[in-house]
Amino acid sequence: IETKLPKVGTTIFSVMSQLALEHKAVNLGQGFPDFEPPEALRDAITRAMAEGRNQYAPGIGLAPLREQIALKTERMYGRRINADTDVTVTSGATEALFAAIAAVVRAGDEVIVFDPAYDSYEPAIDLQGAKAVHIPLTVPSFGIDWQRVRDAITPRTRMILINSPHNPSGAVLSADDLDTLAAIVRDTEIVVLSDEVYEHIVFDGAQHQSVLRHAELAERSIVVSSFGKTYHCTGWKLGYAVAPKALSAEFRKVHQYLTFCTFHPAQLAFAEFMASTPEHYLELPAFYQAKRDRFRALLKPSRLKLLDVPGGYFQLVDYSAIRDESDVAFCEWLVKEGGVAAIPLAPFYETAPDTRLVRLCFAKSDATMEAAAERLCKL
Amino acid sequence: IETKLPKVGTTIFSVMSQLALEHKAVNLGQGFPDFEPPEALRDAITRAMAEGRNQYAPGIGLAPLREQIALKTERMYGRRINADTDVTVTSGATEALFAAIAAVVRAGDEVIVFDPAYDSYEPAIDLQGAKAVHIPLTVPSFGIDWQRVRDAITPRTRMILINSPHNPSGAVLSADDLDTLAAIVRDTEIVVLSDEVYEHIVFDGAQHQSVLRHAELAERSIVVSSFGKTYHCTGWKLGYAVAPKALSAEFRKVHQYLTFCTFHPAQLAFAEFMASTPEHYLELPAFYQAKRDRFRALLKPSRLKLLDVPGGYFQLVDYSAIRDESDVAFCEWLVKEGGVAAIPLAPFYETAPDTRLVRLCFAKSDATMEAAAERLCKL
Ligand SMILES: CSCCC(=O)C(=O)O
Ligand SMILES: CSCCC(=O)C(=O)O
Repeated sequence: IETKLPKVGTTIFSVMSQLALEHKAVNLGQGFPDFEPPEALRDAITRAMAEGRNQYAPGIGLAPLREQIALKTERMYGRRINADTDVTVTSGATEALFAAIAAVVRAGDEVIVFDPAYDSYEPAIDLQGAKAVHIPLTVPSFGIDWQRVRDAITPRTRMILINSPHNPSGAVLSADDLDTLAAIVRDTEIVVLSDEVYEHIVFDGAQHQSVLRHAELAERSIVVSSFGKTYHCTGWKLGYAVAPKALSAEFRKVHQYLTFCTFHPAQLAFAEFMASTPEHYLELPAFYQAKRDRFRALLKPSRLKLLDVPGGYFQLVDYSAIRDESDVAFCEWLVKEGGVAAIPLAPFYETAPDTRLVRLCFAKSDATMEAAAERLCKL
Repeated sequence: IETKLPKVGTTIFSVMSQLALEHKAVNLGQGFPDFEPPEALRDAITRAMAEGRNQYAPGIGLAPLREQIALKTERMYGRRINADTDVTVTSGATEALFAAIAAVVRAGDEVIVFDPAYDSYEPAIDLQGAKAVHIPLTVPSFGIDWQRVRDAITPRTRMILINSPHNPSGAVLSADDLDTLAAIVRDTEIVVLSDEVYEHIVFDGAQHQSVLRHAELAERSIVVSSFGKTYHCTGWKLGYAVAPKALSAEFRKVHQYLTFCTFHPAQLAFAEFMASTPEHYLELPAFYQAKRDRFRALLKPSRLKLLDVPGGYFQLVDYSAIRDESDVAFCEWLVKEGGVAAIPLAPFYETAPDTRLVRLCFAKSDATMEAAAERLCKL
């Protein structure tokens, strides 16, 4: 059988996690915390199972969970959304991204993505028979050059895919960025897909500029978020999408045949936990900022150059003082010889440029960060 | 935004479950048990969470779970498969079906499906820009007329989608059917997608004729199954696909960007439970046969005509002695006036024929079956 995805191999996240295991490396590659979700959440799942929440949830998600998402959206972004028509619970943000692309993008369409781009975007676009149009972010701040976006738009542009806080760089979009984007898509049919899975992890007192804060953009956007990133449970695979009613209707048509619904007991557990403990996500910026600062302090004696980290839970480092090779080669060497798994940037670009940057995850316990830093400082 | 799926509304399963709630009807519509999964399984999930299995599982599924699936395949169907290359764990059978279709079927291809066909098949085919070619099953036995299949094949035929035990009819394919299918696809590039989610629910001493029993077919097939149907936990959304290495590689390329992985704690729980308690699925035929027989006995005094049920957990009934109207109209009347939710057959056909049949789920406790039967016998 001839492949439909000739450019795709095994995702770099699986490859690096596998190498980390094989070489007993400290795994700062794939983005997941090495600490646990709140015990109250786990207990609530156990309770939901005991109470018989073991059959299908409603395909669009449990009503009280959609209510909590709507409440949070109002509290955080000042936007009232309709929990019945605008919110859909998904099997992780990955499913939400795929469903959004499959619902909106047609064969022959173009989708603007910004490189480095999360690696699930392009295969999802390719599978629609559409084309990803890659615009590199500026270096080293990983901002969007909006003139390039204006220049890239054609009558076939169907979607612009933004991601803030940005993975892998941690860059965040500003309110001005959103205004500029709104002006660009005004009077077009372009849908904005906004990947905001790190929405609660923004540092130094900055506010996350969700598309949901922006009345005009919100009317034409699908916003994707993740419980895994916010509640330290990436393995539970719960996410959601928010979009205005008409867009949500198209999203749901696809979602119902992609997965139908997601793990029911966790939906009840999150509905309860979000209602009782909103401070969890309110405290997340400080929680991760302390980790960021600790990790940076630990790496100070190393020969790695640390880039700024405005959000997310990844630190980009320039390794060019250590080795003169591509980032993929460096990551292979690092996991085998240096005992640390990282993520190279090249796979997130159309053109695999020579960035000399790799990504390290600092969603880790002190002990893990210290063990990794000890090894990294020896390089 | 113009829809990509003009034929699709909300899936009939969601519609009927919603109506059942609104009208306080006994819900024999959407296929799910109203009893619980084994307590040991729920306890194992709680334990897995306590042991820290809360971050991403490997995208292809936890190794010990894939091992158990391979062991079961050998025990049940005499086929040795490679757990590393041939088994992929998915977010329910729905995701596995979608991923299989998205991985194999291209724009312009044709996929043969048999009507009545499970309602997720065609939208998944449509989204590839391909065409579902519908062949009606024979009535009332819901068998395949293989001559019609031969006649339907064109150079564009890329896939044949079979489903045994069949939803909604319960019909099962025979070893002869599989031989005939093998002869038809021999020397072609056609891939068989075999939906076997009711594989463990076959009655009257018959053996499930899995495609995995058939050496020649197995080499070109993707076989999909479900933990939800087998272990009474449809709301946990765990399923899997088995396919030879090259097909699995294509399947996995799509799966990793559809959902990446599925709820990690349940994967460990099933690995343990399948190892310790293989009798669970061995006892399933007797368990459901008793329910089938009880349900049929309860309906004997009614004016419904009961069709044969060789497998699965649905009873088809002919309601023409009660009302002279389409099955959709009958189901609407039945949920409102009769107090029972059923599933009409028309939505599973391309042509919405006047079958005068509706589907009732008997994966229910005695009390539920009795309550439903009391209402149905009054009609
Ligand atoms: C789905 S595995 C990738 C996890 C992740 O978000 C990342 O590492 O960037
Ligand atoms: C995913 S909801 C439908 C459940 C089911 O398999 C059925 O009722 O046929």
